[in-house]
Amino acid sequence: MSPAVMSAAVMDKPLSIEVKKVNRPEPGPDEALIKVHCIGICGSDVHYYEHGRIGRYVVEKPIILGHELAGEVVQVGEKVTNVSIGDRVAVEPGITCGRCEYCKSGRYNLCPDVVFMATPPVDGAWAEYVTVRSDFLYKLPDEMSFEDGALLEPLSVGFHAMRRGKVGPGDRVLVVGLGPIGLLAIQAAKLFGVTEIYGSDVVPFRRELALEMGATGVVNPLDGDVQGQLSQLTEEKGIDVIIETSGNSKAISDTIHLVKRGGRIVFVGLPATNEIPLDIPQLVDSELNVYGVFRYANTYPDAIQALSRSQLDMGKIITHKYPLSRIKEALEVARTQKDTSIKVMIYPHGGENK
Amino acid sequence: MSPAVMSAAVMDKPLSIEVKKVNRPEPGPDEALIKVHCIGICGSDVHYYEHGRIGRYVVEKPIILGHELAGEVVQVGEKVTNVSIGDRVAVEPGITCGRCEYCKSGRYNLCPDVVFMATPPVDGAWAEYVTVRSDFLYKLPDEMSFEDGALLEPLSVGFHAMRRGKVGPGDRVLVVGLGPIGLLAIQAAKLFGVTEIYGSDVVPFRRELALEMGATGVVNPLDGDVQGQLSQLTEEKGIDVIIETSGNSKAISDTIHLVKRGGRIVFVGLPATNEIPLDIPQLVDSELNVYGVFRYANTYPDAIQALSRSQLDMGKIITHKYPLSRIKEALEVARTQKDTSIKVMIYPHGGENK
Amino acid sequence: MSPAVMSAAVMDKPLSIEVKKVNRPEPGPDEALIKVHCIGICGSDVHYYEHGRIGRYVVEKPIILGHELAGEVVQVGEKVTNVSIGDRVAVEPGITCGRCEYCKSGRYNLCPDVVFMATPPVDGAWAEYVTVRSDFLYKLPDEMSFEDGALLEPLSVGFHAMRRGKVGPGDRVLVVGLGPIGLLAIQAAKLFGVTEIYGSDVVPFRRELALEMGATGVVNPLDGDVQGQLSQLTEEKGIDVIIETSGNSKAISDTIHLVKRGGRIVFVGLPATNEIPLDIPQLVDSELNVYGVFRYANTYPDAIQALSRSQLDMGKIITHKYPLSRIKEALEVARTQKDTSIKVMIYPHGGENK
Amino acid sequence: MSPAVMSAAVMDKPLSIEVKKVNRPEPGPDEALIKVHCIGICGSDVHYYEHGRIGRYVVEKPIILGHELAGEVVQVGEKVTNVSIGDRVAVEPGITCGRCEYCKSGRYNLCPDVVFMATPPVDGAWAEYVTVRSDFLYKLPDEMSFEDGALLEPLSVGFHAMRRGKVGPGDRVLVVGLGPIGLLAIQAAKLFGVTEIYGSDVVPFRRELALEMGATGVVNPLDGDVQGQLSQLTEEKGIDVIIETSGNSKAISDTIHLVKRGGRIVFVGLPATNEIPLDIPQLVDSELNVYGVFRYANTYPDAIQALSRSQLDMGKIITHKYPLSRIKEALEVARTQKDTSIKVMIYPHGGENK
Repeated sequence: MSPAVMSAAVMDKPLSIEVKKVNRPEPGPDEALIKVHCIGICGSDVHYYEHGRIGRYVVEKPIILGHELAGEVVQVGEKVTNVSIGDRVAVEPGITCGRCEYCKSGRYNLCPDVVFMATPPVDGAWAEYVTVRSDFLYKLPDEMSFEDGALLEPLSVGFHAMRRGKVGPGDRVLVVGLGPIGLLAIQAAKLFGVTEIYGSDVVPFRRELALEMGATGVVNPLDGDVQGQLSQLTEEKGIDVIIETSGNSKAISDTIHLVKRGGRIVFVGLPATNEIPLDIPQLVDSELNVYGVFRYANTYPDAIQALSRSQLDMGKIITHKYPLSRIKEALEVARTQKDTSIKVMIYPHGGENK
Repeated sequence: MSPAVMSAAVMDKPLSIEVKKVNRPEPGPDEALIKVHCIGICGSDVHYYEHGRIGRYVVEKPIILGHELAGEVVQVGEKVTNVSIGDRVAVEPGITCGRCEYCKSGRYNLCPDVVFMATPPVDGAWAEYVTVRSDFLYKLPDEMSFEDGALLEPLSVGFHAMRRGKVGPGDRVLVVGLGPIGLLAIQAAKLFGVTEIYGSDVVPFRRELALEMGATGVVNPLDGDVQGQLSQLTEEKGIDVIIETSGNSKAISDTIHLVKRGGRIVFVGLPATNEIPLDIPQLVDSELNVYGVFRYANTYPDAIQALSRSQLDMGKIITHKYPLSRIKEALEVARTQKDTSIKVMIYPHGGENK
Repeated sequence: MSPAVMSAAVMDKPLSIEVKKVNRPEPGPDEALIKVHCIGICGSDVHYYEHGRIGRYVVEKPIILGHELAGEVVQVGEKVTNVSIGDRVAVEPGITCGRCEYCKSGRYNLCPDVVFMATPPVDGAWAEYVTVRSDFLYKLPDEMSFEDGALLEPLSVGFHAMRRGKVGPGDRVLVVGLGPIGLLAIQAAKLFGVTEIYGSDVVPFRRELALEMGATGVVNPLDGDVQGQLSQLTEEKGIDVIIETSGNSKAISDTIHLVKRGGRIVFVGLPATNEIPLDIPQLVDSELNVYGVFRYANTYPDAIQALSRSQLDMGKIITHKYPLSRIKEALEVARTQKDTSIKVMIYPHGGENK
Repeated sequence: MSPAVMSAAVMDKPLSIEVKKVNRPEPGPDEALIKVHCIGICGSDVHYYEHGRIGRYVVEKPIILGHELAGEVVQVGEKVTNVSIGDRVAVEPGITCGRCEYCKSGRYNLCPDVVFMATPPVDGAWAEYVTVRSDFLYKLPDEMSFEDGALLEPLSVGFHAMRRGKVGPGDRVLVVGLGPIGLLAIQAAKLFGVTEIYGSDVVPFRRELALEMGATGVVNPLDGDVQGQLSQLTEEKGIDVIIETSGNSKAISDTIHLVKRGGRIVFVGLPATNEIPLDIPQLVDSELNVYGVFRYANTYPDAIQALSRSQLDMGKIITHKYPLSRIKEALEVARTQKDTSIKVMIYPHGGENK
């Protein structure tokens, strides 16, 4: 019998992507086959699409991108017990070894042998179906949409950033950069009980969306004197924690001066250049803590529970929706319309709602 | 010139208390004089009133009780800079030495030289005025009522319990005992981003109030099989953290079996007897963490900020309000009507609103 | 071809054990075959031997006991890369799933699907050979003996207890119970930089050995007023951390009164009865932290490194050595001579030295 | 009666210092008068001496420098209870307010109102006597020399760095810069149970001294490929924690590439320029933690206990000893002979031994 086929968006070189029929994968004994309901376009997908590489990861053969997804379980391997056919699930897109020092000590996001979707040469899930090891599948509550399920992936970055930055009630938090990661970091801060959250971005649309999604106040770095603006907003109490998501070189440098004595800075955004000047005397004198964030670990179950019982509406960041057949158009929106688009969502089976 | 006088409720022996004229205190150089707007009756106040002692603290001479208060600054010592006349403030009622190993390492609640209001022989504030060292005064935001300011004291116990128990989003929390401390611990859990909070109490009124104040579900220990009830409520996920506030001997013993493997138990309530049986083999086998909570430290600024921007309505626990002149009646309510009263608030100047 | 055979000590019912020829196991693709050089008798082995059960674990069919071992790699599966034939290795005897919430968050000792040697129905390693998944094998430095390699297992319990109790330099530590776990907990404390370590036991031989192995001082609970003895030994500074390894009911109860305000208690020993009276009012009033310890996680690499460069001589706890053929005699020593034996070591291939 | 006088080294402008008679201070009610036995020259003292300022602190009127001291209590204020006349004590040279948010939360080193010796305009203790608030005096055990007592101050920086960096047994630590702070950081690492400690410095004398004082290995950055050298030294296991004490701009930048994935970097040394280039993409991708260290808090009691029972000989860093009368000569040694001097110790009363 010939294998089943499915549609998938295959990128072969920069700016060249096409929806083709490919073999539908078969789940292994500990895997499930997921019918992808919706899957976001991430900044990293756009970067691979545009440049064919991110740092040491290079697209050397045709690849399927996409790793922010939710869908339905349609087939399970014989050893799978935690999900069943028909379950609506979110997918954590990195499969880790479970045996290295990082996995064993709870930091599996640093596993050197991780197999992460849409990171060359590993295929992602801009496709009708995908197989996933079942321990990285998480059932969605009935009241949670597939879209929220897909957004759990970028939300997880913010959730992990909160944990890395030891954020809690009483903290005054500044989120620098109000793209998808920044806006969801604001949501994550709210889930952690933070009630004073400031946002910073040069794009008016993003600042407005931040306010709409619960930021206490926003600043425009182009207005100058960000420190003064923040001082006024916080009634001179100062910023306890900065979550830097912009990756902008100047924004990164500025964090040292925008955080309070004894404060914490969490770097999430990846700058385009390696050498960013930091005021180390100030970092020492103020005894700051600085934390890098690489993806996330142990976030899905907690984020699902917290989010499903919250009043947050993450869906507001979805500005565009496309069927898989229009992936090229969708990518162009994500790539070029940074002033008006935040998250572009792809529907491999054409639907748009849960 | 003869010193100014004021009304204060002076207790001389168990069940004997009288409102008298006493000298109004003068603030020292680093103190402020506070006009007490409202002040709660705490379980410890009732206990001193009824029994004349709590453990090693004995009422040996007439004492003014009361330590949950908010009011207005009406006079400041020459060195005071953080508050001004006219400021509305909450009062943290324990003045610590700032120099011992506990104070220096951030656990000032364990300071052996603390001077704590309404702990014999130190007077409290069931009076028109009280002096307080200014670093233990915290300005209230305009939108926060004096009542909430006074309730910051019992809320702080819950807030501190959350920190001790490392509570955060994703945790399933059970609060055992739904008196004032338990109900406010639920509020504290909400401030820490907890979205699944269960409550346990034998009194129907308290369980109902817990639900009204945001508990996800409640159980009645008298219905038996609490473990089964909780298992059902959490869809077999289990309880990550228990906050024990009842002080009931059996309730304390049961915590070990109600918490999940690897879970945390925070003991807040003081049982009447010393020797409580605990299942140590289970504690070891499940590798539990158990934390005692004694008062609180470093909670006021964070709790004020978090609470003032929340939707929580702590005032729901105030079931009775009395002027200072009716303190005896108020104490009788607090002492005897446990099925219908939660927090009784006293107004030394007669008013009831901010 | 008929499978290779080997000698192994097989227990079929309480007090009945016999060395027999059994099939030598074949390593799977990710396993190695270990030639067991030496393997200790643990208290749990003795307990199974004597009573046929520990709590919920029951010996229902013949079992090979033993789980404290080191040996040499003599065969490796095709996927094994971290060890090679000829390597001298310590064996961590619990194989975890790597996929549950406990494994993923770094607490793999709580994995519900762990396969732990010598825990019914899983066989242990009182045998000439044993297979182990290779990520639980750790190379021994040349200068470390097989005996130390085998003792890494009980040392790991102490090492883990230090981490659970957040022990560090400056802490005054009391180890209650000076059997193998207690004596090795003293060594672990030394590895963590603790310089004031007190020991408590009723057996003179054990107290003397504790002093010989680096305890700062010892107390005999039978002399009474342990609190007074400790106060004198610490010049009234008090005990910061207690590591309870005796499992004695009274000793467990006493910990609450022997630790300093704000101190930490780590429960390691398993008492024979479930209900141990604890002074909860004191636990609350002193704001103690209590931690259960169940086995260990992430200890082997660190303990090997720390131990191999230390001056510690763990071998002092080995009081008896036997070939596997005399296992019954060895078990009788371990079972009955508690006043003169600490650790009994078994040599399946007859040798005694590295 | 005319006030008592004493000798003190008074600096009035850069490179101008003179020993003069000044009034001997009188202890306040909570202070003790200390007869200074010995007091070190710190890099900051040399910097003030040479440049008249460090960052925002400027020598605007004559000042007495020096803050690393131990001595004898010769007079006590009426409220002093923790020390008595005749006690040998170490002096923690920063007096904090005890009332600000930093003091109350255990980070008193960040107290904005600290009065720190030898930080303009506050006088230090290059003098025969000095008064100190008694809660910052710590009794020395009989077996601890005054020199070790004085060295507790720079050792405290290393001790605090270990805590900030969460250093413990199993960690491989690299100390960059082997001046007094770096060499004492190596001692601090040993106190924390670290057994693999590497040092890096361009000066041969310092590298040799590091080895003599217990470093596992040393590297010379001028030899190039420090990463390769460290990889070889650690058998490719990598560096878990870097303690940067050199303040050298290139050394600071290099830390990001010398630490292991998931590792920690502690910045102690103050560079001369503000803008140091850091590889932020690497910091993010490797999810590093970076901690600034400003002085220390809560170190003295623990460091005294740990050090007094250790085998460490901190005195090896004292390369020169001078009476106070030769302070100018002593300063020239400290200022100009960086290849052969580490710590210069001053004896205000002329003696050199305890």
